[in-house]
Amino acid sequence: MQKDFLMREEVRDDVPFDAATLKYNDAGLIPAIAQDAATGEVLMMAWMNAESIARSFESGRVTYWSRSRQYIWAKGETSGNIQELVGFRVDCDRDCLLLQVRQTGPACHTGRRSWFYTDVQDGMEVITSEPEDGHS
Amino acid sequence: MQKDFLMREEVRDDVPFDAATLKYNDAGLIPAIAQDAATGEVLMMAWMNAESIARSFESGRVTYWSRSRQYIWAKGETSGNIQELVGFRVDCDRDCLLLQVRQTGPACHTGRRSWFYTDVQDGMEVITSEPEDGHS
Repeated sequence: MQKDFLMREEVRDDVPFDAATLKYNDAGLIPAIAQDAATGEVLMMAWMNAESIARSFESGRVTYWSRSRQYIWAKGETSGNIQELVGFRVDCDRDCLLLQVRQTGPACHTGRRSWFYTDVQDGMEVITSEPEDGHS
Repeated sequence: MQKDFLMREEVRDDVPFDAATLKYNDAGLIPAIAQDAATGEVLMMAWMNAESIARSFESGRVTYWSRSRQYIWAKGETSGNIQELVGFRVDCDRDCLLLQVRQTGPACHTGRRSWFYTDVQDGMEVITSEPEDGHS
């Protein structure tokens, strides 16, 4: 019975999504993982704030908060390599997001599809993908 | 030419992996995404420090740093729902990790396979998976 009670407390279902109910860090940010909606490949992880979440839903294009440049960063605004928002998931702690996206071109500034192109194999760093055509 | 130079600067290949070269936050932590090595499903995101990274490689089982409990957390140490470390990837900024894992049982304390069981659809929160057998 106690466990059932806990489950009801933890699981929100069929309630309106309110970005204010998410848990942000002291800088007002929440990590967001972008996953290719078709292939399941993890493309990148970046940060969002409440405003970038609202803009992502409004525009249908993923918008982050750039910590290095301190501004709202509509992914692909200069490169054209946009991310269409296909799915938006919240984790059980409400402190991380999983975005399912349709990625145009490479997600990485090096021209690679994913940011996670460095694999550690037997203690060595190994590059596992090359820049796509048109990026070198 | 400038771009080639940038590429050489950014890409480390065939060098020994050293966890000290990663970029940790002010608390000495780096986010780590755990992905099912077989299906590509994103299971969870948690935090690691240099010691938990070392222990993960040594033991072959994923070990995090628990921010809430402030201790080294060998995933599954009480539940038995361990994560075998299959792949370890570093992102281009060296401030995020992607772990490919073989997950025993559910990754989530609610008994669900993934922590990301809450989907936002048309502005509503929708639960997309149920606890696995033996968890209710």
